[in-house]
Amino acid sequence: MNHAVVLAGGGGTRLWPASRRRMPKQLLALGADTVESLLAATCRRLEGVVGTEQLWVVTAEDQLSGVIDALPQLERDHILTEPCARNTAAAIGLAAVHVLARDPDGVIAAVPADHAIGDESAYRAVVARALAIAATEDAIVTVGIQPTGPETGFGYLEPGALGSHGARVVARFIEKPDRATAEKYVAAGYFWNAGIFVFRARRILAEIARNLPPLGAGLDAIARAIAAGDAAAATVRIYPGLPGISIDYGVMERTHGILVVPGDFGWNDVGSWSALAEVRASDAHGNVVGGRLIAVDARDNIVAADEGLVALVGVSGLVVVRAGNAVLVVPRDRAQDVRDIVKRLEGAGQEEFL
Amino acid sequence: MNHAVVLAGGGGTRLWPASRRRMPKQLLALGADTVESLLAATCRRLEGVVGTEQLWVVTAEDQLSGVIDALPQLERDHILTEPCARNTAAAIGLAAVHVLARDPDGVIAAVPADHAIGDESAYRAVVARALAIAATEDAIVTVGIQPTGPETGFGYLEPGALGSHGARVVARFIEKPDRATAEKYVAAGYFWNAGIFVFRARRILAEIARNLPPLGAGLDAIARAIAAGDAAAATVRIYPGLPGISIDYGVMERTHGILVVPGDFGWNDVGSWSALAEVRASDAHGNVVGGRLIAVDARDNIVAADEGLVALVGVSGLVVVRAGNAVLVVPRDRAQDVRDIVKRLEGAGQEEFL
Repeated sequence: MNHAVVLAGGGGTRLWPASRRRMPKQLLALGADTVESLLAATCRRLEGVVGTEQLWVVTAEDQLSGVIDALPQLERDHILTEPCARNTAAAIGLAAVHVLARDPDGVIAAVPADHAIGDESAYRAVVARALAIAATEDAIVTVGIQPTGPETGFGYLEPGALGSHGARVVARFIEKPDRATAEKYVAAGYFWNAGIFVFRARRILAEIARNLPPLGAGLDAIARAIAAGDAAAATVRIYPGLPGISIDYGVMERTHGILVVPGDFGWNDVGSWSALAEVRASDAHGNVVGGRLIAVDARDNIVAADEGLVALVGVSGLVVVRAGNAVLVVPRDRAQDVRDIVKRLEGAGQEEFL
Repeated sequence: MNHAVVLAGGGGTRLWPASRRRMPKQLLALGADTVESLLAATCRRLEGVVGTEQLWVVTAEDQLSGVIDALPQLERDHILTEPCARNTAAAIGLAAVHVLARDPDGVIAAVPADHAIGDESAYRAVVARALAIAATEDAIVTVGIQPTGPETGFGYLEPGALGSHGARVVARFIEKPDRATAEKYVAAGYFWNAGIFVFRARRILAEIARNLPPLGAGLDAIARAIAAGDAAAATVRIYPGLPGISIDYGVMERTHGILVVPGDFGWNDVGSWSALAEVRASDAHGNVVGGRLIAVDARDNIVAADEGLVALVGVSGLVVVRAGNAVLVVPRDRAQDVRDIVKRLEGAGQEEFL
C-alpha cells in the first residue's frame, strides 16, 4: 500500500518571530492560504494519493501539541515523536520501521512538512507516479523540481541515463552551488532537490543498514520493540544514540540507481519572509498582506500580523511581522538575515522570544 | 497665591498608535523618561512653583480615568472635566472661575500638559518670574521660547518695547510661518509661542468677558453655580453651549500690553514620533529606544514598544512603534503623516484602533 511520511521536525529560524520552537514554520500558515498551516496543507494535499490510515507524521517532542492541533483527524499512533533531533535519515528510518510493521510491502513517499505547492493536482500526479515506479521497480525515486531560476539556496540533481518508466537515473546529488554554477545547472536541465523521496519501507531500511550500520542497528532494535508492543519506551531509549545524518548525505548520495521524476507544480520552500511574495497574491500596491494592513503611500511590502493592525506610511520593500511578543522589520532583500536575530536571542538566552 | 492650570484635554494623532482617544499624548511617557507620562512630568515639574493644593488639571471626559491614574496625589476636585471639547479659551476660563472662587487674588500659570522640558530648574525659574510679574503688575505674561531653528510648526511672538521688570511687551502674535519667514523671525529675535500664559484669574476672566462676551456669560453662570455648590451639573449644562475658540486667537491677539519673558529650558512639544530623538538619548548606533530592541545593522531608528521585543535588521531612519493592538512603521522624515492614518481609521469607523 502507499504511505506518506511527513517530516515535521524542523525549525525555520528565518521565519522568526512567527516561527518559534513550539510553533515552527510548518505549523504556520505560510502558503497561499493565510489560515491553513503548511503541515495541514501538506497532509490534505496527499489525500487521494494515500489514505488517512496511511499518513504518518514524524515530529519533535516539543512540537507534538502543535502537530496534534494542526491535524485533529490524524490517529495519535500515526504521529511519531523524536525524543531529540537526529536529522532526516533517522526520522525516515523510524517511520519506515513503523510502516513495515503494519505493511511489509508498504511504499512510502517521504515529504517535508514545510513547503508550499501551487498546483496541487499536478503535485499529486507526480507523487502518485513516483509511488508507482518505486513499487513496481523496488526503486528509490526522488522528485526533481523544475528550476525557475539559478537559485543558490537549494541542492541540485543531475539527471543521467534514462531508466525505467521514462524516469532518469540520478547521476549526482549536488550541494548548494554558487551563482555561476547554478546558472550552468539550470541551462543543463538539472533539477532542484526538494527532499521528496519515495521507496518501499523495506528498501530504504536495507539502504540504511548498508550505508549507516549504527543507524540500521538502532532501527532494528526499535522494530523489535514495535513487535513486542514497546515502541514508545524503546524509541526514547534508543533514539538519542542514533547518528544524526541527513538522508541525502547518508543514503541517497551513496546509492546508485536512484530515479528522478520531474515535478513542475509551483513548489516553494518558503525559506524566508521574502518567499511570501512568491506564494501569495499582492494587492494593488504590491503589498503582500497576512493580517490587517492600513497603508499610506506604501508599496511592495510583505506584512504578516497574527493580531491587530499594521500601519505603514511611506515605506516600500520592507517585511513587517507582528507575531506573539515580537515585531520584526527588515528589508525584503535582507530577509535571510533574520536568523542572525535568532542566533543573538539564543546567545543571550532570551527564551521568551525563541 | 500662585496656581497652575494644566491643560490636558488635547489629542495627539501624530503620536498614534500610542496616543489614543482614551490614552492621548499627555498620558504617555514621551519625554526623556520612558515611564513618567508627560502630564505627570508637567505636574511634578511645577512643584515648588505652586503647591499641590494650587494645582489644577482641565481634561476631557473620556480622558478622566487616565488622568486620575497618572496623578494619584491630586485632589479629585482639582481635576476639572470638560463635558466636550471647547478649545483653550473655555478650558482656561473654567479653571479661572474655580480658582477665583477659592482665591480671589489667585495668579495662574496655564500650561499645556503635553510638552517635554529638558532643564526643569530653568523652567521653574522662568514660570516663577512670570507669576511674580503677573501678580505685581496684574499683567498677562507669556513665556517666549528661544528658538533653536526656523521651525514652521509653531506660532511666533514678536517682542516689542521694554515693559516692566525687564520683560518685553508682545508686539504681535504670529501664526505658523513658512520657512523663509521663520528664518527671518529667528534672525530678528522672535520667540516661539509655547502656549504658556500667566495671569490673575480675575484679569483673564475680565479679558474673556471683554473679547468673548458669550464665553464670559457662560463662565459667569458657572461661577454662580460654584458658589451655589452646583458646579458639576452646571458645567455639564452650560459648557456645550460655550464658543470653541483658542485663548491665543480669542484673547491674546486682541489684548494689548501682554508681556513676554524669555525661556530657554530645552522645550519640546513632542509633536510627532521624530521628536523623540530630540528629547531622548540615542544608543551607540543612533537608535532611540523605548522598550526592548534587538538590532542587527540598524541605525538611527526611533523605537517605542509598550511590550515585547522589536527586532530591526538592516533598516535605518525608521520609526517603529508597537502600542496596544497596532504596529506603525514610517520613515522619521514622514512622521507628520501619521495623522493620515488616524484620519483614515476615523473615516472607516475603526473605533478599536482610535
